[in-house]
This record gives sequence, structure tokens and C-alpha cells, in this order.
Amino acid sequence: MKYRISANVIRRLPRYLRRLTGMERAGEERTSSRDLSSAMGLTASQIRQDLNCFGGFGQQGYGYRVRELREGIAAVLGIGETLRAVVVGVGNLGRALLANFRFDECGVEVTAAFDADPALIGRRVSEVPILESDALEGYLKENPVDVIVLTLPRKFVKDVSELAARNGVRGIWNFTGSDIDADLGDTIVENVHLSDSLLTLGYYLRGRTSENQSHKEET
Amino acid sequence: MKYRISANVIRRLPRYLRRLTGMERAGEERTSSRDLSSAMGLTASQIRQDLNCFGGFGQQGYGYRVRELREGIAAVLGIGETLRAVVVGVGNLGRALLANFRFDECGVEVTAAFDADPALIGRRVSEVPILESDALEGYLKENPVDVIVLTLPRKFVKDVSELAARNGVRGIWNFTGSDIDADLGDTIVENVHLSDSLLTLGYYLRGRTSENQSHKEET
Repeated sequence: MKYRISANVIRRLPRYLRRLTGMERAGEERTSSRDLSSAMGLTASQIRQDLNCFGGFGQQGYGYRVRELREGIAAVLGIGETLRAVVVGVGNLGRALLANFRFDECGVEVTAAFDADPALIGRRVSEVPILESDALEGYLKENPVDVIVLTLPRKFVKDVSELAARNGVRGIWNFTGSDIDADLGDTIVENVHLSDSLLTLGYYLRGRTSENQSHKEET
Repeated sequence: MKYRISANVIRRLPRYLRRLTGMERAGEERTSSRDLSSAMGLTASQIRQDLNCFGGFGQQGYGYRVRELREGIAAVLGIGETLRAVVVGVGNLGRALLANFRFDECGVEVTAAFDADPALIGRRVSEVPILESDALEGYLKENPVDVIVLTLPRKFVKDVSELAARNGVRGIWNFTGSDIDADLGDTIVENVHLSDSLLTLGYYLRGRTSENQSHKEET
């Protein structure tokens, strides 16, 4: 069965997953919408609504079993089903992601990286081979790739995105900070906007509110 | 006057700001809760509620003036008031942020970076001098620093966060992917969880829903 879940709920699922993974590691077996509520800065009723969207993991008067809920959310997110990705642009950010980001915990395997710098070609970062950018199109034609990670200069964003969409890539994880103004058909773009995070922190630091505590617990 | 605004509204303000900045650049002068609604994947009534939280920029039957609303939100976020930051950890990610992230657009000025690698000390990235990590405490005592940006290995997170909080740093922008388990008093932690973004993209790619379009427009 397919559930129709709103985009805002989807965006909260990874946060539930993180919270529940932490609880499980800490040996907690049970939780409630009330516990989750104070931990996540949402109302208990919002949490019950969110979790009801994809079936009733909770029991009246008992709450939720942490492991069951964690596994249920991981299943809804589809983490068990591996997606293939390539990283385009092996500058500082590309290297940082390849070396430190836990793609596997998101159910994603990086099979190759691409860069225009001849000095990098043939090297590996975290076992991922770096290939030359000109080889990207051929690679996409010959290998199943679900996601391209864009960590390249902005001026190449449009061309590379179009090339990827044309060659069957269905998802773009965009770190360039600029919106992608291109015809990408059904390809989905997920933009990473680090500035949203710093602006939120800045708001609290500038002392416009006394809600520091609730902010602190929400993230 | 101080407004009490919920943490969830605050977290949406940067998204409004981005959207409005884009509209202004495109020469649009007026907008409505309805326009913003379809652009941001929220209901029009939610948008009116959000914007009402900090005073009535909108007019019945006219909507919002784009520039006025953008300036209003920037003022609420306090972007005009510069915060001072240091980056701790000049590995790939620290360098990527120093070289490419537009701190100034968030009203933040980076005054120094710190690393333990002797080969980096005395060098500069985007004019920001790299100092040795041992000098961090002295620096914090002698210079006003509002935010530390943590781009260092996880094992140093606790010590560096405590040192910063002890020396008057009120905000921590945490890129280490691990929660900070330390007594930080009133210091606010903003965690960057890139996995939330990749998991959301993965959800849509795995085809659990037909809401791709609304997702695409929401970010």
C-alpha cells in the first residue's frame, strides 16, 4: 500500500529517525508522543498525526516501542533499498563529503566521483575513484546512477544537471547554493541551504526571543 | 518591541527570505500568501499566520510588497547586526566553508580559523588567518566571538565546545554530525544534519509517493 504523506511530514521523518536511533542506543525501549514532543519542539498532537500518516505504530496508553518505530520510519524512508550516487566536483566540499559523510547510513552508495583537475584523476577518496569530468556522460550511460551530488562551481550547474537528467539520473543533491534553472523533467532537486541554518542560529543569538531552550531541543 | 515567535516559524523565515530575495531580483514588486504558498509548499493560511507573527506587512486585497516584506524579515532575523565567528578545524569542510560560503549574507564575519596542523598555521583562506588550535582560548579571551563553527573531528567536539562556552561564545554551528554531550550553559547549538536532506531526497526517489512536484517546489 502506498500512503500519501505531505512534504512537511516527510521532511520531519529523518529527525524522528535520528532521535529514535539515539534513544535505542541509550537502551530506551518505550517512548510517547509526549517524550518525542519535548525532544523535538513539536506538539504531542502533531507527533501523533505525523506518525499516524503511515500506520499505527502507537498503542493507546502504552506509547511507542522505540525499535519498532525506528524500523518503521526507516522502512518508510526506504533506507534498506540502496541508491547509487556519483559526486561531481572533488574540491574541498566534495572531498569532505567523500571522506566524512556517512552515505551508507542514508542507504546510498557512492560509486564514482568526477573532476576536471588532471592531478586528481585516477586517485581515490575513501575508495571512491576520481574520474575525469568528460567521462561523466559515458559513465551515466553505462552504469545505473540514481543521484548526482553537485559540489562543483556554480557556472557548471546548469549543464551538468541537464546532462544528468538526460541520462536517467532522477535525483540531484545540490550543494552549490544556487537554484538550478534548467529543464530537468521529472528529476528531483534537493537543495542544501546552509544559510538557513546559520540565519536561524543568528536569530537566537541576536536575542530577539527568549525561546533559546526550545530551539536548542528542536534540532 | 519583542515578539514571541515559535521555533518552527523562525526556521521558516530564512526560506521566506530566500524566496523573496529571488523575487526581488526578478523584478517582482507584489506577492500574495497564495503565490508564496505554491512556491513554498505551505498553505496560504499558514503563510498569513507566519507573517502575522511579527506584524502586519500585508494588506487585505493587495498582498505584500516584496521589498518591504524581504526587508522586514531580514530585520527580524537581525542580519544587519554583524556577528563575529571563528572556524575551528581547517580540513576539507572548514576550507570549503571559508572559501565558498557567503557568511556575509547571513550577517556573520569570520575573523579567524584554527587548526592543529603546523603546515597550515600562518596561511590564509579567503583572507581569514589560520592560527594554531592552542591559541583558541587566548583568542576568545581577547576578542569578541559570538559563534564557533565546528568543522573538526568528532573526538574534539566536547572539549572545544566547553572551552568556547566557558569563554563567552554564545553560539555553536556544529558540522560534526554528532550531538554535543557537554554542559554548555546558555550557549545555543545549531546542528547541521546533511543526512536529513539526503534521506528526504531518497524517500522521493524510492517512489513511495507521487508528490514529487510539491517536494521540488518546497525547498
